[in-house]
Amino acid sequence: MIKANQITEALQKLREKSPLVHNITNYVVMNNTANALLSIGASPVMAHATNEVEDMVGIASSLVINMGTLSEKWVEAMILAGKKATERAVPVIFDPVGVGATVYRTKVAQQIIEECKPSVIRGNASEIMALSNTNVKTKGVDSTVSSNAALDSAKLLAKSINSIVVVSGETDYITDGERVTSINNGNTIMAKVTGMGCTATAITGAFAGAEENLFVAAVSAMAIMGIVGEMASEASKGPGSMQMNFIDQLYKISTKDIEQRLKMSYE
Amino acid sequence: MIKANQITEALQKLREKSPLVHNITNYVVMNNTANALLSIGASPVMAHATNEVEDMVGIASSLVINMGTLSEKWVEAMILAGKKATERAVPVIFDPVGVGATVYRTKVAQQIIEECKPSVIRGNASEIMALSNTNVKTKGVDSTVSSNAALDSAKLLAKSINSIVVVSGETDYITDGERVTSINNGNTIMAKVTGMGCTATAITGAFAGAEENLFVAAVSAMAIMGIVGEMASEASKGPGSMQMNFIDQLYKISTKDIEQRLKMSYE
Amino acid sequence: MIKANQITEALQKLREKSPLVHNITNYVVMNNTANALLSIGASPVMAHATNEVEDMVGIASSLVINMGTLSEKWVEAMILAGKKATERAVPVIFDPVGVGATVYRTKVAQQIIEECKPSVIRGNASEIMALSNTNVKTKGVDSTVSSNAALDSAKLLAKSINSIVVVSGETDYITDGERVTSINNGNTIMAKVTGMGCTATAITGAFAGAEENLFVAAVSAMAIMGIVGEMASEASKGPGSMQMNFIDQLYKISTKDIEQRLKMSYE
Repeated sequence: MIKANQITEALQKLREKSPLVHNITNYVVMNNTANALLSIGASPVMAHATNEVEDMVGIASSLVINMGTLSEKWVEAMILAGKKATERAVPVIFDPVGVGATVYRTKVAQQIIEECKPSVIRGNASEIMALSNTNVKTKGVDSTVSSNAALDSAKLLAKSINSIVVVSGETDYITDGERVTSINNGNTIMAKVTGMGCTATAITGAFAGAEENLFVAAVSAMAIMGIVGEMASEASKGPGSMQMNFIDQLYKISTKDIEQRLKMSYE
Repeated sequence: MIKANQITEALQKLREKSPLVHNITNYVVMNNTANALLSIGASPVMAHATNEVEDMVGIASSLVINMGTLSEKWVEAMILAGKKATERAVPVIFDPVGVGATVYRTKVAQQIIEECKPSVIRGNASEIMALSNTNVKTKGVDSTVSSNAALDSAKLLAKSINSIVVVSGETDYITDGERVTSINNGNTIMAKVTGMGCTATAITGAFAGAEENLFVAAVSAMAIMGIVGEMASEASKGPGSMQMNFIDQLYKISTKDIEQRLKMSYE
Repeated sequence: MIKANQITEALQKLREKSPLVHNITNYVVMNNTANALLSIGASPVMAHATNEVEDMVGIASSLVINMGTLSEKWVEAMILAGKKATERAVPVIFDPVGVGATVYRTKVAQQIIEECKPSVIRGNASEIMALSNTNVKTKGVDSTVSSNAALDSAKLLAKSINSIVVVSGETDYITDGERVTSINNGNTIMAKVTGMGCTATAITGAFAGAEENLFVAAVSAMAIMGIVGEMASEASKGPGSMQMNFIDQLYKISTKDIEQRLKMSYE
């Protein structure tokens, strides 16, 4: 059972260490991802050339693989980097964006899981259900079902591949197949800002680069996302200002904010 | 002759259906395009791998092809997706960014028009004139002439390829070669925000994914762009806040805003 | 010795000419780079296809090469464009993002310098030290040392390749190997916004496209970056609003702002 102080301590570790997070991610979110990582206190680097990803992951504290806008050469780089990371015990965080939407995406997601052995997988409900072969209708990269519908799939997936699985949505679930922690923070407008899920995955990478207990890292990331989302939404007039305020709040979030706002429960 | 209520109805259809818009677009604008589509009520997906574009367009309501940062592999994907879309009667919206600036761009634009048979083409005056072989000096991706100078070219082009052609500028013109509808909303600061034209094309894709009358869809998109641009500019201090406020206003625009602000005329 | 009025005159030239700046840059910053160039008064174009870069640089006033997210095909385009630019006497501005972090990056940076003969190189302290073979620990794309630690390396580098070298940091240094001009404007929050260095390089490209004296162009760019950064930070709550306000202020900066705020010195 995770306690609030473990989250505040994990954030402190992150800000002290400023871990280098190597991202192989999609074109849509790169700018926001980099800004989110800088704001929370990490040091982001984006590199995808097969000529250098192994070198880059060699100096990184975590690796984030996000297949939002995948293509063959990029997948090759993801696999190379992921294998090297696993070899070096650098945690790999995987975001299977849009898995289930096309045959190719599903094949690639399975290949990445098999070859890179991610420590944490974060997706929306549709994606997690597609990954655990649950029958689900996908619609591009947005989820068609609520996160609690995917909880059983998440547990099964976590157990079968020995990984932590995060389903994000109105409630966020973090499970290792046995334990389930849920976070009830956040605001619906987050779904109207592109790449919020990708940001959650990157922030998980930031925590995983500084906090050895990866379950705590994953819970911390989702708690921060939800609380920052709540605080940012209160200052926003729409998705545009929400995107901006989210970055400002990530930079400013304090121990007190976490203590006052955290809505966490266990199963 | 399009009426204001056709535009408000098209917007309602868009928001109810939340069409999946498949974008093969340029690196510069992907984040803004995705946010604009989410804010107006559509569901964006960006996918460009030749391995998956046909599958993706197979679940989409419209396809937006934008050649802003083109290269061979991407053009191959555009053609594959465009052909599949035409085969499935999914409307193809084409943005010939920078056509005329290089020989390669002009060749690719012509190839896309021939092979993908776009339902709507949107460009600035320079681009539309370059496409219809009118002699015009181009300067990268920004127009060197005003939109009304390109109206004859737009009509000719629309007739010759049996498509709707949109010239955006201070006045936006929408023509099928016979009818011309013009929109006089907007604000000059829109030209100082990168990718506003690309956003217009994507929003046209959103409307085309929900409104069967594609002329109404194109007019609606340009009307919304202009009105939202006006409203956003009133709240902005420069191009940075303009970019943010534009997304907020796209999210909030109401029937009343359209009725009060629309400046539409016919020829 | 550069005078303040040379900077204000250079800005006026830039706004009058609105030079076309051809960028071959990284995915993370493309949107911001384009917006920064539009806001300061230039006309940006992004093009990276080997099929067209020579044509594009043929109509451009300057070429900005930024290797933030490099790969083989892109490097090939950078070299092609850079050679063509040099042949046409179009100034080449080079940003060696992350040089020293991987063997591949270092090799590519050296190749670009040799083959494209950049007129100006801008980097952070770690990057400039890595380029001049000074022993320095790199950490991805963020600097690990302060800018003054790299001043000697910058001078050596400038002399050895006959180029202007800019080291940005708390103090910005501009040197041709003999002269050193330093700018003491700016704010620490600039380091929390991704791609501020890349923006500095692009703005240098904008000035170099309008001001024939490239030393004046480089000093002007760094002065504008610092002053705009200061003004934007005063209006910002965090890195998100900073990114937005920076673009607004680039658009609005006046002769008076420069005269009142400029902190420039010489060695």
